[in-house]
Formats: sequence, structure tokens, C-alpha cells
Amino acid sequence: MNRAVVLLSGGLDSTTTLALAMAEGFETYALSFDYGQRQKVELAAARRVAQSLGVREHRIALIDNDIFGRSALTDDIDVPKGRSVAEIAEGIPATYVPARNTIFLSYALAWAESLVATDIFIGVNALDYSGYPDCRPEFITAFEKMADLATKTGVEGAHFKIHTPLIAMSKAEIIRKAGELSVDLSLTHSCYDPAPDGRACGLCDSCQLRRKGFGEAGLADPIVYAV
Amino acid sequence: MNRAVVLLSGGLDSTTTLALAMAEGFETYALSFDYGQRQKVELAAARRVAQSLGVREHRIALIDNDIFGRSALTDDIDVPKGRSVAEIAEGIPATYVPARNTIFLSYALAWAESLVATDIFIGVNALDYSGYPDCRPEFITAFEKMADLATKTGVEGAHFKIHTPLIAMSKAEIIRKAGELSVDLSLTHSCYDPAPDGRACGLCDSCQLRRKGFGEAGLADPIVYAV
Repeated sequence: MNRAVVLLSGGLDSTTTLALAMAEGFETYALSFDYGQRQKVELAAARRVAQSLGVREHRIALIDNDIFGRSALTDDIDVPKGRSVAEIAEGIPATYVPARNTIFLSYALAWAESLVATDIFIGVNALDYSGYPDCRPEFITAFEKMADLATKTGVEGAHFKIHTPLIAMSKAEIIRKAGELSVDLSLTHSCYDPAPDGRACGLCDSCQLRRKGFGEAGLADPIVYAV
Repeated sequence: MNRAVVLLSGGLDSTTTLALAMAEGFETYALSFDYGQRQKVELAAARRVAQSLGVREHRIALIDNDIFGRSALTDDIDVPKGRSVAEIAEGIPATYVPARNTIFLSYALAWAESLVATDIFIGVNALDYSGYPDCRPEFITAFEKMADLATKTGVEGAHFKIHTPLIAMSKAEIIRKAGELSVDLSLTHSCYDPAPDGRACGLCDSCQLRRKGFGEAGLADPIVYAV
């Protein structure tokens, strides 16, 4: 049974990605990060999802918060609210965190190599575009090339594969796919700025994209929104 | 004054690299890592060097030890001793740490972007070859390409430059360069397996390469060896 490291934030996309990796027959090693994100609800969701789907192992790696620059996800900057999907698609949002996916994938690469695995899954998505440079296919391809050159595994002739099964899917397609795989999406958390009681705000970019996706999929979102 | 992030282990190579970055006129931000290395003497050396050379800021980022696989630098595996330089040059040594420079450079990239800097210095060396895949020029080039695609900075048209001023220098040349720049090499630490009192073992690959370098440079090594 081949092993794969799967990046898991506990959101809709990474949860569906994990389910897809398992459906493909991989023994899965889920990797989440505590990087000083303002809300830890996300890590609780990752734990629920990893347990519910039955991964082989789930690690939450601590990342030094100081290294990341100013971002609405880690600092006291306002998370944008109430933007239309067209507005969201424009430019790089305030929630951009410098080099985040590069660091996440680097950790995944280190863990994969120590597991003698060459498969890494990440739930990046280029449709319903989030505006993050490190979610684009050209970034993923460049990371794969770098990974082969960086490692003993690569020197010995094997190739790392960064799987991005959601890259060309719309949010509605992702939600339908999760349904086909019987993923319990009530376990997931997408909101950038949840209410004190943990409910999703309903207005940040992430909530807007999620709600639009459920609407287009013709399905009811099982999570509760504050607004 | 342009800013540069400089990876600093406190060894001979990274210390000389830092001095070179300062000689080129950069305002320097030194970055070291606590990744559960068996000996913390290295971090003490990095602190001494950063203070002695007068960097603008020195950060020691904590990296989750669990993520790195088995290596003689982080686990209870024997550090190779008494190997000739020819033997050291053969293959990938037991001190290889999966994806280490990838993770180090990813952190440097994140910090650089938050500093609005595009220059990163790393003291990798392809002569007196350490056998680490992530010290090769082709790895560095691949990382630079990936970095431009990963970041807001790259999307906006700027380019990251990973400076490797030592890449084609012999150890003796590095030692002579450090002398020209008046770097106090007694502050540096190179040994993989120091004695309990902190003295360098004199026999590990890193000590062997350092001693050979001083010998070829015709200079006395200011540090004290156990053997």
C-alpha cells in the first residue's frame, strides 16, 4: 500500500482531497500546521476530519509564527467581508501569507522522504480562484522539480508527485465529489473569521465561495452561519 | 540600503557568507534554526557570530523536530568518524536531513517577503563536496524559479535571488576570504559531534574538511579540537 502525505487544513477542499487520496488506495499521513492562525477552530476541524476518515497518522506541526509576515490570517488586520465572487477573484487578498504553501509543502516533502513516500496531496484550486500565487499549477510544477533536486530520493532516480486533484474543479464540483465519497462536510471549517461561538461568519471570502459552491451544487451546507 | 536574509548556522561557511553579504552592502537579517539538532553548541555559535558581525536582526526559528526523518544530526545514529576527504565525497552521508535546505530556504523566503527583500544568502558549497543534494547549484536554481512563482513579489514582477557566494570555492579559499574580511573564525562551530565540554571532535566529516581547509590555506585554526 503506497503512502501519501496529505496537507489537511480541515476545510472543504483539503478534506475532499484527503478522501480522494484514500479512494485512490493510498495509506494517508495527514499534516496540519499550527502557525499562529488567529483561530484554532481550523485545527479542531482537521482533527475531527482525520479521525473521521481514518488516516494512518495525523501530525500538527508547529510553525514559528514570527516568520510569517503581516496577513489578515495571522495578524490583527481586518479580514475582508461581503465581497462578491468577482471582487474576490481580483488580485491577491489581504489573507495572503508569504510563502505559506512553500513552507507547508517543504514540511510535507521532509515527512514524505522519511516515510519513503513520493506522493503528496494538496487541495489547491485554480478555478473559483483564490488569488493566491502559491495555488497555481505553475507553482506546483516548479515545486515538484525542485523537490527532485533537493532530495536523496530524487538523486536516486525517483520522482515526487504533488497531487492536486481539485486544481481544475469548481467549488460546486468539489462539493458534489465530497458527496459521492460520503464525506461528512459538517466536520469541515472554512471561515477566516468565525464568531466567538465558532460559527462561520458567512461574509468572508472563504464563506462566500463556500456558500456559492453549495448553491450551485444544489445542496444544503450542513454548517451553521452567524449571518 | 537593500535588505538580505542570510541563513546562519554558526559554522565557517555561513559565517563567511554573512560577512560577504555585509561587504556587498546589504542590511542583513540572520536566520538560524532550532530543529532538535543533537547539539545546541551550533546555536550558541550563531548567536556569537550574529552579534560580532552586527546584523540588523537575528532570529532563531523553531522547527518541529518530528518532521525530519532519521539523521545522524537529529537522532541517535552514529556520526561517521575518521573518514578521508575522498571517502566523505562519496555518496550521501548519514548526516543528510530530508529536505532541510528546502525548509530553511522556505522560511527565509517567507521572512524576505515580509521584509520586502528579494535577496537571500546561503553558504552552500559544491566543491569539497558535502554530498548533500540540496547544496547543488541545480537545486538552488530550481528553488529560485519556484520562489518567483510562489509569491506575491514574484507575481508583481520582481525576482528572488538566492546568493551562493561560496558555491565554487574550496574550503581553503573560504578560510582565506574570511581572513580578508577580518572574520573571527574562533567564534564559529563546525563539528557534528562535539565533546561534552564543547570542543570539536576533530574526526567527523565536518571537522576533517575544516582541518584540511586550514591546512591548505596555510593558516592555524583558532578553535580547539578534542583529538
